[in-house]
Order: sequence, then C-alpha cells, then structure tokens
Amino acid sequence: MRVAYQGEPGAFSEAAVLRLLPDAEPRPYPTFDEVFDAVSNGSVSFGVVPIENSIGGSIHRNYDLLVQRDLSIVGEVQVPVVHNLLALPGVRLEDVRRVLSHPQALAQCAAFLRGLEHVEAIATYDTAGSAKMVRDEQRRDTAAIASERAGTLFGLESLRSGIQDYDDNITRFLAISRQRVPLGPPDKTSLVFTLKSAPGALFKALSVFALRDIDLSKLESRPVPGRPWEYLFYLDVAVAREDLQCARAMVHLAEFAPSLRTLGSYPRWRERDDVPASAPAKEGAGRG
Amino acid sequence: MRVAYQGEPGAFSEAAVLRLLPDAEPRPYPTFDEVFDAVSNGSVSFGVVPIENSIGGSIHRNYDLLVQRDLSIVGEVQVPVVHNLLALPGVRLEDVRRVLSHPQALAQCAAFLRGLEHVEAIATYDTAGSAKMVRDEQRRDTAAIASERAGTLFGLESLRSGIQDYDDNITRFLAISRQRVPLGPPDKTSLVFTLKSAPGALFKALSVFALRDIDLSKLESRPVPGRPWEYLFYLDVAVAREDLQCARAMVHLAEFAPSLRTLGSYPRWRERDDVPASAPAKEGAGRG
Repeated sequence: MRVAYQGEPGAFSEAAVLRLLPDAEPRPYPTFDEVFDAVSNGSVSFGVVPIENSIGGSIHRNYDLLVQRDLSIVGEVQVPVVHNLLALPGVRLEDVRRVLSHPQALAQCAAFLRGLEHVEAIATYDTAGSAKMVRDEQRRDTAAIASERAGTLFGLESLRSGIQDYDDNITRFLAISRQRVPLGPPDKTSLVFTLKSAPGALFKALSVFALRDIDLSKLESRPVPGRPWEYLFYLDVAVAREDLQCARAMVHLAEFAPSLRTLGSYPRWRERDDVPASAPAKEGAGRG
Repeated sequence: MRVAYQGEPGAFSEAAVLRLLPDAEPRPYPTFDEVFDAVSNGSVSFGVVPIENSIGGSIHRNYDLLVQRDLSIVGEVQVPVVHNLLALPGVRLEDVRRVLSHPQALAQCAAFLRGLEHVEAIATYDTAGSAKMVRDEQRRDTAAIASERAGTLFGLESLRSGIQDYDDNITRFLAISRQRVPLGPPDKTSLVFTLKSAPGALFKALSVFALRDIDLSKLESRPVPGRPWEYLFYLDVAVAREDLQCARAMVHLAEFAPSLRTLGSYPRWRERDDVPASAPAKEGAGRG
C-alpha cells in the first residue's frame, strides 16, 4: 500500500505515515500539491499531510488544498517533533558556521540557535532535505536541523538532540483518500462552510453545535480569494458525521450557511501508552 | 515623524505607511521583530505591519508579536496589491529565465507564472528586495515581482503590470505605538483571550458580543506554545472600547476567559473615493 508524503525520507511526514499505517510503503513528493495530485490520480492509496503544529500553528496550504480537491479526510495522527543538530562524522559543534533547515524548524529552535556564536541560520525547503544537502555537499562547516532518522539515513551524527525550544512540540497530520472510508470507527468530523456577512453569523453557526453539546476541537478561517474579508470557516467537531446529533446540527447549519461541505469523518488520534509506537492505529487500542 | 516598516524602500509596507500617515518619514527594517523593537525602544513613533492579505490570509508572525510585546494598535490601513514584473531596461519578456519575489507574491501570481515557459520562480525575502537584487546583480535573465514604485526606485522597467491572479488583492496593515492613543476616533477594537477547554467555550465567548449586537470582523486562533491544542483567540469587533456595550461585553467575557487583553481601539480603515489616495487618514474624511 503506497502512501504519499511531502519531503525527503527521514521527514517527520514519513514518520507520520508509518505511525498511522505501519505496513505502508511511504512515497516522497516534493510539494503538498503533488501529494494531493498523487492521491487524486490513484498513484497512491492515501496521502498524509501536516495540518497543524502545536507551536507554529496551522499549515494553511493544506487547508486550502482540502477545499480545492475532492478528497476525504479518513484519519489523523500526531507525531512529537524532536529536532537534532546533524553534521558529518567527526565535525564538532564549534566547527559549525551554517545551520540549514525548514524555516519553521529554525523558528522552533530559535533559543538554541541564539546560543551558538558565529553561526548563520539558512532557510531551506525541508528538514530531511537539509540533512541530505549536508551529506551531498560534504560540508564540514554546515549542520542541519532534522529528525534523528534523517541523520541515520544520510550518514550524519547528532551533535545535539532535542534542541527545540518547547518539549511539547507536536505536529498533527491528516490522512486523505479518494474513498470516503475512514481508517476506523469515526468520532471526529471536519467541516468547511461560508457565512453571510451579518452580525452574529459565526455565533449562530457555532450555536448549532453548542446547543447539542457537541465539542469543537479546532476553528480555522481562511480568506475567500477574490472576496476581500470574507472567510471559509474550517471546523473540527468531536462527533461522527453519522451521529444523529451531528446530522441534525448540519441540517441546522445549512439553513444559513450559503455553502457547507463535510471534509471527512474519521477516528481522532489517541496516544497508545500501552502499545509500541509502531503499532497499528486501531480505534480504541489505547483503551485495551 | 519616523515610522518603521519591514522591507526595502518600494515595499507595499512603505506604501501603507504613506497612505496612513502622509507626513511620515518611513524607516525600513529587515524583519517584523525589528519593527516591533524599534517602536518599543522609541527609535520611531509608530510601526506599520501587515496583518492580513485578502488572498494569502493572516500574517501570523505579527499576531504573535502583538501578544509578546507591550504595544498598542492605534490605526489600520488597507493597500491594494498590484504586482509588476520588473527587469533591467531593454530586457524582453522572452529573455527572462528566473523570477525573484517573496513566496506569497509568487503564489499570488501563480497563474501568470505558469504561462511563462522555461522560467524558474525563486523565493526571496522581500518583493522590493528582489527588485534591488536584479539591479545590484545587473542580471538580464532575471526579473522581480514587486510594486511599480520598487521598479522606479531601482531603475527597472515593468514588463507586465497587474500580474496578480485576483484583482481584489488587498493587504490590511496595523499601526502600532507605545502610546495607547488612537490615530482618530476609535470604532474598532482588537482583543486577545484564552478559554478553558470545555464544550461551548468559544460559543459562550462570542455570545457576549452577539447578545449586544456587536459585529465581529475577524477571528483568528494561534497556538499557545507549550500547551498543545490550546489557543489564543484574536477578535476584532466593530465598536470602540469605550463604548458602554463593549465595556459590558468585556466584563462579561472576563467572567470565563482566564486571560483577556485589549490590543487596541482605533478607527477602522475607510476608502476615501472623494479625496486623493495620499490624503491624511482622518476619521470621517470619506464622508466629506
């Protein structure tokens, strides 16, 4: 089973694929758009894309692609982000003059980087791709910030581990598919809708869930291109789409939302303390 | 009166400074952080920073800086974004092999760029800075996407004008100051607050405004670093902070928001069809 992700082998997205679908064959693509394309044209069974990081916030390109393409969200997975400073074997910390990584990774290690003297931070396209660059160019004055696995894959050693500013640095990923078949019994639903510009419009939209005691886990707004200061609202609710309360809330919302679409209904991610991290993402496994 | 902005002369941020404060002396800074620093340490009277683009969405770094620094929002201004393809005099469109600009500008001209053959788009730090690079390097195979004014400043000619995908491409900027003195009679207020994780929490927060017929113009959420999946909510409401209804709503909100801060109360931007674009941003000037 082929599963598309963005980045190079060793990327956190590849780890997300294997955490959610341990038997998958991860396939790297250069951009998020190409991950969505690969799922749309059937080159892969699923795609796994980051949607939100607990420090950096939402990954807007993927919110936009969810609306632009006709795919469904079928699962989610969270991956703790542990950044390492990686360099060629034998390189010492004091030899390092340049540090390469994705801008968000550089930002997440800002305090660590400020503590290094005479070091220039250089933004690149990808964390694991930065490790690959250090290996390919055989530069002994350059380090990369990436995962431990990226270091292993590209023959680099970790000069420092866990260099991110916050321990609780977690990225949430979504699994997307052409088929609207969730990866387990659904208990979470993602919606997107528009509202007429009127006082209290968003309050009314949220009321359809609040009045039915349905919890919201995320609200995101994105601009509607060509219509300044109008927004698409993305909402995650803690209930299955097929649940009667959710169905009623959706009918209620449709009364005043000019457009409303279900992006997917799927099992929300649960950490499994009692099973290995590589175990299959089965619904309720954590309760066992 | 010195006013800080991010970017090079010719940046849209510089245009925003002059649109809001025609008598200002705009002062360029490399990063948003340094604009906030310059205001905080008194090097400048005001800073003007982009907060939202009608196509690309919110500029999160500035949302984060508003909370991290103790400054007030004292005004806002909108600037239409018109992108130009700029090159050295005599260069023809068919000579161009590379196009430099800020990633958001490249994204905003994606359809135009797809129509050019054998052209590589290269992301840089800044739109006007890209124009400067083309001038400094005297490259005849390279063009920049930036404002017409950037072209004039750096001696470049416009090969094509208005190349952005959407006509209604507008950036909204905020003026920030150490003093909590709005640039005119306020009729808009920006708040930031946190909520306890509980069903209906956001619904209740919005209710304090909806029940008083106070309109919301923007809701943005940003992560709380170190507390995964908890959020800071930024809200713009169409009422002055001193208005009795707003004061009551804030007292009501404080009953259940663990933290609540007013970022500023200021005159909302109004387009002035009947006065020149360079006229002072005086409250009610558009009503003439």
